[in-house]
Amino acid sequence: MAAISVVFASFIGVPSREAGMRIALLGGTGDIGEGLALRFGRDTDHEILIGSRDPEKARDAVEEYEAVLEDHGVEANIKGFANEMAADRADIVVLSVPPYYAGDTVEAVADNLDEDTILVTPAVGMKGDEDGMHYHPPGVGSVTELVAQRAPEAVPIVGAYHNLAAGKLADLSVEFDLDTLVVADDEDAKRTVISLSNEIDGLRTLDVGPLANAAEIEAVTPLVINIARYNDELDDVGAKWL
Amino acid sequence: MAAISVVFASFIGVPSREAGMRIALLGGTGDIGEGLALRFGRDTDHEILIGSRDPEKARDAVEEYEAVLEDHGVEANIKGFANEMAADRADIVVLSVPPYYAGDTVEAVADNLDEDTILVTPAVGMKGDEDGMHYHPPGVGSVTELVAQRAPEAVPIVGAYHNLAAGKLADLSVEFDLDTLVVADDEDAKRTVISLSNEIDGLRTLDVGPLANAAEIEAVTPLVINIARYNDELDDVGAKWL
Repeated sequence: MAAISVVFASFIGVPSREAGMRIALLGGTGDIGEGLALRFGRDTDHEILIGSRDPEKARDAVEEYEAVLEDHGVEANIKGFANEMAADRADIVVLSVPPYYAGDTVEAVADNLDEDTILVTPAVGMKGDEDGMHYHPPGVGSVTELVAQRAPEAVPIVGAYHNLAAGKLADLSVEFDLDTLVVADDEDAKRTVISLSNEIDGLRTLDVGPLANAAEIEAVTPLVINIARYNDELDDVGAKWL
Repeated sequence: MAAISVVFASFIGVPSREAGMRIALLGGTGDIGEGLALRFGRDTDHEILIGSRDPEKARDAVEEYEAVLEDHGVEANIKGFANEMAADRADIVVLSVPPYYAGDTVEAVADNLDEDTILVTPAVGMKGDEDGMHYHPPGVGSVTELVAQRAPEAVPIVGAYHNLAAGKLADLSVEFDLDTLVVADDEDAKRTVISLSNEIDGLRTLDVGPLANAAEIEAVTPLVINIARYNDELDDVGAKWL
């Protein structure tokens, strides 16, 4: 839900609502959640809320992330909650759960979302065989669109962070120089997420249009896994669009 | 078909068959064909054969490419032929035709291919709507695999050059720094194409496994078109995997 500061900022004509946002990372104990927590924690002043189905697990992750950030000289502002509570308190909710939990997690937190909460989805459907990973989208076309279908209608949905190199993201000693691709039907929500993502050092965020363009972005995730598998020198890889 | 020099090179234990190869670019009057002709023409010593359904059109393109290369101080070794003749004379045949001609072109040149000719396919199936371009593979899974199905069984098939930024490729004043992704079931053919592609200045060629992994590579082509559409500063874009 929108913090008071956000409403006030837009009222006085400040062009972005980035100052003082609360970012909930649902499933924030997983690899993408960890990376986003550490990067947002180090590179921004936003409040980070780690969500998990088990709030105890969320609080353990917070301790771990705070220790890492302290090693990098950062006093972090991170808290751990059950997913519902994290979503309820946040301006931006990132659904950093495995794809098979994405739909259920949206439904679990549906009552905690509203038109002032931006729901960000990075999940991708894949299946592997002996050759590699393959894109395996749900019938609606992409997991991003599935999330949009399952969320309350008023909630703005943004697809982002699908193809980030999770290992590099979570290793603060790695100097990041990658792009992330963003789709949304709600232009305001898209601009907010682009602006927020660009606060992470070395991350460039590119607009790729509406949610209908999500599938081609999601398909890059199995591809980067395949590139990593067949190239020893690229064990954790993302994309830069040049 | 393999030139004598190639057989000799492998006989005396030279590790690659790159020296003195003949590269046919079928549909070589199109944009990817033009780019590959100019880059191979400038950066390598291989003989370039431009193929077209209309040999007169092929010869016109040759004149044009030779003029561009001369402006860059390169005396080129390019010839124009009908597709069948170009394929017959080549060690490497690049099927740089639009996707809807890919199957038919393979069948048209089938008698001119054999186990010593590597068939390289860059074509991708797409369809566009008001939102953007979308990946639209044939039933067999990818155009790359469709080409493999249509070609004579003995011919080694390599998928490559799917996502190159065609405009940059064809503009020799642009310093290229992009990757191309390669799939093949025939390891020798794959190594030959990787080594050949790496001869183009600024092009890094990455192995992504067998033909079964082609679809995720092909899906990047509509994605780069969408990225270009929604980002004015990226009007002709390719990928670098980092």
